[in-house]
Amino acid sequence: MRKVKVGRKILIANEEYALRNKSLLARRKMPCLNVISSPGSGKTTILTRTIEAIKDRVRIGVIEGDIQTDIDAQRIRTTGAPAIQINTDGACHLSAAQVSDALQKLPLDKLDLIFIENVGNLICPSAFDLGETAKVAVLSVPEGDDKPAKYPLIFATAAAVLINKIDLLAAGDFNIEKAKADILKLNKKTKIFPMSAKTGEGMSQWCDWLEALTNRQSR
Amino acid sequence: MRKVKVGRKILIANEEYALRNKSLLARRKMPCLNVISSPGSGKTTILTRTIEAIKDRVRIGVIEGDIQTDIDAQRIRTTGAPAIQINTDGACHLSAAQVSDALQKLPLDKLDLIFIENVGNLICPSAFDLGETAKVAVLSVPEGDDKPAKYPLIFATAAAVLINKIDLLAAGDFNIEKAKADILKLNKKTKIFPMSAKTGEGMSQWCDWLEALTNRQSR
Repeated sequence: MRKVKVGRKILIANEEYALRNKSLLARRKMPCLNVISSPGSGKTTILTRTIEAIKDRVRIGVIEGDIQTDIDAQRIRTTGAPAIQINTDGACHLSAAQVSDALQKLPLDKLDLIFIENVGNLICPSAFDLGETAKVAVLSVPEGDDKPAKYPLIFATAAAVLINKIDLLAAGDFNIEKAKADILKLNKKTKIFPMSAKTGEGMSQWCDWLEALTNRQSR
Repeated sequence: MRKVKVGRKILIANEEYALRNKSLLARRKMPCLNVISSPGSGKTTILTRTIEAIKDRVRIGVIEGDIQTDIDAQRIRTTGAPAIQINTDGACHLSAAQVSDALQKLPLDKLDLIFIENVGNLICPSAFDLGETAKVAVLSVPEGDDKPAKYPLIFATAAAVLINKIDLLAAGDFNIEKAKADILKLNKKTKIFPMSAKTGEGMSQWCDWLEALTNRQSR
């Protein structure tokens, strides 16, 4: 009982910052996507390739969450996009307070879209609202097609699911139709984008979706 | 401050059950390995292949932790080994209380070694003692060689690190010498076993290590 009560208090504190972020983003009509996946599913590679593909049309800023190191922010900055690194120092997910702080450091006037790359964890980040406008889940082929059934929350709440590393489909027994069906069973409205950030296959459909998102909210 | 205090209370409650498990395992001289990794690194496949390889010499029981489904326990039982499935129903790691309960359901008199397959999460399970005799980390090649630097805790505390899916080394840019060096920087005593549970490469060294573990503790 005690645990439940306190958990709720922490969530309320997080919720206050999340509402503050949500209100800031709404005022600016700024789409902000909270990207969630297991470690190593390819989130940073997807972001660098996405930025390279559409930076002439969509100006992107990135908030990078990692337990330690600024490897990922450095990788993003090679594209020319601004990136703010947050180190959670052991914590398993980003908090809305950390994102609030990072939003103040980004040049919002010069951006059309913000990505938050959460800590690599398919579970905990799904339960913490950062005030983002939508969540994006990444599932990579080597992780296996049973992951939507085993880790349902993120797939049930994501506006888009990227099935990455499809260049490795031939090397394993990932059944992409089964994965799609399991995802749609949890969330029939989600958009599913099979892709390989490495080879570029499938990236254009995802980039079109992002562009439509920024146009819908354009100022 | 409040959060820290309460976090400590939860850890103490967990610690009491962990001590109870540790004492039970010590009385029986039973090695019990808590296997921790990202989702989809191949934990269950490693366990099924390990059981098949050494079941004539080492009798293995498995405690399976998953948020939902009993897919993994079913896979283990196809080998003939007993498996107890725990569903955490959203929680991101197994607790010592859940393991205490599962230990009572396993036929301990007929076992030489217990595996606990934790929930797929490279972060949270590292911080919760289950009373295991040692932790084993699994890192799979498609996750990338930067993971020990980015998620140091599990690599710093594991008695063994399995680098799985080495059959995919040619398909990517995973530098196995860099990964090994980063792991040994965190933990110079750990044993590193590069392997492919799929092709069987490298499995025998790992199986020899397990056999030595059960012989050291043999009754």
